[in-house]
This record gives sequence, structure tokens and C-alpha cells, in this order.
Amino acid sequence: MEVSKILHMNSGVGEKSYAKNSLLQRKAISIAWPIIKEAIEDLCSTLNIPTTLTIADLGCSSGPNTLMIVSKLIKQIELFHKDHNKPFQYQIFLNDLPTNDFNVIFRSLSNFLGDLKTEIGADFGDCFFNGVPGSFYGRLFPKNTLHFVHSSYSLQWLSQVPKRMEIMNKGNIFIDSTSPKDVIEGYYRQFQKDFSLFLKCRGEEVIAGGRMVLTILGRRDEYPSNNDYCHAFTLLNMALNNMVDEGIVEEEKVHRFNIPNFMPCPEEVRAEVLEEGSFIINELGVSRIDWDFYNTEFDGSNVYVDSSYNIAKCIRSVTESLMIPHFGEAIVEEVFQRYRKIVRNEMSKKKIEFTNLTISLTKI
Amino acid sequence: MEVSKILHMNSGVGEKSYAKNSLLQRKAISIAWPIIKEAIEDLCSTLNIPTTLTIADLGCSSGPNTLMIVSKLIKQIELFHKDHNKPFQYQIFLNDLPTNDFNVIFRSLSNFLGDLKTEIGADFGDCFFNGVPGSFYGRLFPKNTLHFVHSSYSLQWLSQVPKRMEIMNKGNIFIDSTSPKDVIEGYYRQFQKDFSLFLKCRGEEVIAGGRMVLTILGRRDEYPSNNDYCHAFTLLNMALNNMVDEGIVEEEKVHRFNIPNFMPCPEEVRAEVLEEGSFIINELGVSRIDWDFYNTEFDGSNVYVDSSYNIAKCIRSVTESLMIPHFGEAIVEEVFQRYRKIVRNEMSKKKIEFTNLTISLTKI
Repeated sequence: MEVSKILHMNSGVGEKSYAKNSLLQRKAISIAWPIIKEAIEDLCSTLNIPTTLTIADLGCSSGPNTLMIVSKLIKQIELFHKDHNKPFQYQIFLNDLPTNDFNVIFRSLSNFLGDLKTEIGADFGDCFFNGVPGSFYGRLFPKNTLHFVHSSYSLQWLSQVPKRMEIMNKGNIFIDSTSPKDVIEGYYRQFQKDFSLFLKCRGEEVIAGGRMVLTILGRRDEYPSNNDYCHAFTLLNMALNNMVDEGIVEEEKVHRFNIPNFMPCPEEVRAEVLEEGSFIINELGVSRIDWDFYNTEFDGSNVYVDSSYNIAKCIRSVTESLMIPHFGEAIVEEVFQRYRKIVRNEMSKKKIEFTNLTISLTKI
Repeated sequence: MEVSKILHMNSGVGEKSYAKNSLLQRKAISIAWPIIKEAIEDLCSTLNIPTTLTIADLGCSSGPNTLMIVSKLIKQIELFHKDHNKPFQYQIFLNDLPTNDFNVIFRSLSNFLGDLKTEIGADFGDCFFNGVPGSFYGRLFPKNTLHFVHSSYSLQWLSQVPKRMEIMNKGNIFIDSTSPKDVIEGYYRQFQKDFSLFLKCRGEEVIAGGRMVLTILGRRDEYPSNNDYCHAFTLLNMALNNMVDEGIVEEEKVHRFNIPNFMPCPEEVRAEVLEEGSFIINELGVSRIDWDFYNTEFDGSNVYVDSSYNIAKCIRSVTESLMIPHFGEAIVEEVFQRYRKIVRNEMSKKKIEFTNLTISLTKI
């Protein structure tokens, strides 16, 4: 499976789209915002900023979050910079894999800029948008051209499924409590290789003194007591294996399907940054999002669109592009109907959380 | 009608797509190539080129021509530059309106780069691609950032239909032999305004000594003897008016439809460049493409896909995005069936040509 050729968050703006199912990712950005805000303010105050400020969002996806972070950054810079005479120009680079739906983003830019002008006044500087198709596990920009890089909920995606997982990790689609140690090590080594390459590439592209803030879906502990590396995938595994037991899905197909994700713990992230050497760490924050936030923060009274519904739709919108070519569309529909029930049942028994790591870096 | 919000060459890769119907535009690039080649060689020899060469294609559309010009430029630069030790890096900006199908371009980049490496060797410099959504009748890039700008068959598109055409140009969809003088003047003034703004914006974005080569669908004469500003549209007008006569299309709808195009003559282009003042003219070439080139250069034996078929499909692929919202999809299908017959009949009676103007400029 060539991940970079098929992986994408669900396209368009329909009910199953990522755009409609990315409240979790939106919440992650909001939680990380104080760290992002500090980094952009530091950049503006310490760096001799030229006329044009170049900002890149890596793994921008296609939905309301794509432009939300851009809006927040520009507003913060304009607020911070309001006493200066010379307006900034902004060059905004939105990156994702070529399979991302860039058309939807591009067609929303006109309204976005209109709204931004209404909010902060029409006299802010020119804003030039660029789509950058390609894997961030490779060079995307010329040397020394970026001032600020942001990435949220993208770096847990690996460039590929670690080798031999179809043999080593039979019956599981991700690291699970029954996965042997070799599986965990294989996933971790792939993360090390990918994240190190990411840091090296950005090290060439970000100017000295430039900033980078990354939010990664991660783990709290180095050795999770129950080997549960990602509860969302453990439950998805459960749904698929129920269907194997009932003869609806071939066991062989589950053996051959592994999700190219790794949720690192803070120490694993820190170790790679120190080892690679292009950036220094200003801050590494850990935050959590209770799966029940949909109910507590939005309308919890509607049982049809409760947290289990939203978690299922969210996980579907980010994994479907990999699952459909492997299992077929009909199976995937059934998997997520079962998945929702399993999620609801689990949530009724215990509190489940996503863990986010937010790391703020300065280019040496 | 807000042109920039709806105009686009037909999307995708299907039978009606621009991608499948842009042989004319491809031929125009080939004919202009000697002028483009000279400009890029001059740039490489006179300018102290930094490590990264920035190239923009404005109005890139979405099809094989989009990357053909990029391929030709890179090959030429690498050939010219082969004795130098340090490889160039390329930053390629592909611009079109946000309604353009950028997804299709982005998804073809991986194969494109693979093919290019096969052709010229894997050791050519990094190539960074960016999509730039927006109207070129406005700023698209930060100041002084572009080395080379190319645009082909795009600048005949105006930013809007000149005002009051629905009243002044009744019964015509473009300047026609029956159009009053005010109509010609209205179209010309819009061209002057648009082209001048284009030059001003590029004047800010292109570095001193940078080059720009523009190919525009134009006219040969200042005052065409028959007032026939574009034969392709004269015949389209005929097809629509036949349908008005038969009561299939409302006359009122034809009154309100005007194509936002202007085909300038060489003197009109030259005058704007001199007046605006950011660029000097190195060369202004006029070339012609016989409508029959599909038959003479490709397979002329198949009456189902002869030149009239190809001309009709080409004109349809570039105008349909404006016509469908106005006339409806069913009408447009019928219009182009009639159009093909009219084209075939006209071509049997006389030689018909497109006129291309290619202007090579240097930023002062």
C-alpha cells in the first residue's frame, strides 16, 4: 500500500466528509493555541521580519480547520503588530498529500478573506495563498524560506505501514494488547525514521530563528500499562474481528490491513528532536480530550448525534480512504455501524481520552 | 456574472474535459516556443540567478499543457546550464482561477516528475510545485519574487463582461459584424484596463531583469475589414440565433449573454505595455493556426473526429462553464451539435485561422 498515493481525509463537504467531521481536530488546535500564540509572538518580537511573512501549515487537510489556524495566526500577528507602520504581507503555504481536496480550499478563499477583512479591518497586508501538494516526509520548499510552520494531527500518520506487519501483527490493524513486542518496535522505528526526516527537511526550509509548532496525537506513557496505543483503533479492530467471526470479512484481509499511524509519548518526540539537531525545544505540552466532549460541549440531548456517533464519523472520515480500497465500500459501512455501538458501550463503562502532544521549536 | 467565480476550463479528464480538448492550446505553445526559449536562455545568461529559480505559469488550466510548458522550460534550462556545477532548484507556481481543477494537476505531479527524471537524468535540482488560486488581474505573489512568467491563451479572457453589453450588443454574444461601434470600444476599454492592471501587478512581482512571455489569442489587423473579431464566436452566435429563430432559446437570454473575451491586435498590446511602463518589449510575434490543423496534423480520415468536431469540442470546453449556468445544460448540448455543423460548412468554403500574438518582455 503506497500511503501517499491513497491516503486523504474524506473529500468535499458532504455528511461523510472530513470537513463535516473534524470537531476533534478543531478542539486540538484550540487547546494548543496558547503555545502557538506564544511562538508567533516570540517570532514577531525577536526576528527582524522582512516585508513578507511566510507561514506553512503542513497536513492542512480540507475543511474549516484548514483556514481556522491561518485566521487565528493572522489575527494574532496583526494584533501584536498593530503599532507598526508597515503592514506585513503574508505568503501562506497550505500543504497536504496530492490526494487532498485542494479545490474545496481554494474555492473558499474568497469568502475567507472577506470575513477576515470584516473582522480585523480591510487595511491588513496582502495575503497570498499557495497550495503545496506533496508528502512532508520530503522537501517541499526551497532552502531558508519559511518563518513559521504549523502542523496539527498530521504527524501521527507514518509514510508507510512498517514492514512485515501483515505477518507479525496478524488479527490486528494497529498495535493492540495482543501485538508482540516486534510490532511495537517496528512501528516505533518507522516513526523515528519518518519524524527525523521531517525535522531534517524542515531544518533546511525554515530560516534560523524561525518557529515550528507541531501537535501530534500521542500517548501519555512510555510503556502504556495495557499496551493500548490508540483506543480508537483498538475498538475498530474489535468491530472488524467481530465481522471476521461472523464470516462477513475474510480473516486474511484483516491480517493484511495495518493503519500507518504511531502515537508517540513525549519522551519519544523529545529524543528525535535532540538527535536530529536542527531545532531546539521551547516547550512540550501534553493535553487530553475526553471522547465525551461532543456531548458536553455541543448538544448532548440528541442520542442520534451523540459522542459515539461523532467519534465513529470522525475516525471514519480519516481512515476510509485506506479502508475502502482494501475491504470494499459495503464492508466499511457495516464496520462503522458496529464501531459506533462498541464505542457507545465502552464510553458508558469508562472515561476515554485522546492525548495530544504540542511541541514548540526554534530553528537553530 | 462574476467571471472569476464561475469561469473555468472543463474539469477532470473525461470526453468533454479541457484536458482532452486542448490540442489547439498545445499547438499555440509549440509555435511560441522559439520566443519562450530565447527568453529563458537570455535570463539564464544575463541574470545572476540565485539557487532557486522561480517560474510562474499564469492561467495554467488543468490538462496536459499545464505541465508541458514546465517540462519544456526545465529541460531547456538544464540543457543551457549543463556545464555549471551547482544544480538549480525550481519553484514552480501554477496559477489559475479558484474554479480551476487543481486536484487533477496535483495528482499528476508524481508521474510528471518521474518522466522528467527519466528524460533528463535524476540529478537535476529539486522541483517544488505550488498551486496559486486567484485572478491574475490582481496581485498573486510577494514583491520581487519571480524570475520568469509564462502565460498562454489566457489573457484574452477579460475580468468581466464590459458594462451595458446586454443593452448595447443585443442578439450578439461577442463583437460581431452587426455590433455597434460602442460595443467594440467597450470591449477594448475593458481589455486596456485589465491588461494594464496585469502588467502593473507583474511589474511588482517580477524582479528587475526578469522575463515574461505572453501568448494571447488576438487579431491581425487594427480594424478588421469585416468587424470579425473572433470567427469561432461569430459561428457560435449563429448557432444560438438559429435556436432563437426556432423558439428553442429565448431571445432575451442571448441579449444577456456576452463572452468576456477580447482578441487584441499587435498595436493594442504594444500600446498598453509602453503606457504601463514596467516592462520593455524584446519581441512581438504574430502567428496563425489554420483551423484545419487537426485534420492535417492528426488523423483526417475519420469524419467523426475531424477538425469541425475538434474545434467544437475545444470551444465548448472553454465556454461551457459560462454557458451552462445561463442557458442550461440541455441547450448547451444542442448548441454545440449545431455549432459543429456550422463550423464544418464554413470550413468547406474558406480557410479559417486563429491568430496568436506572442510578446516577450523584460522587467525594467
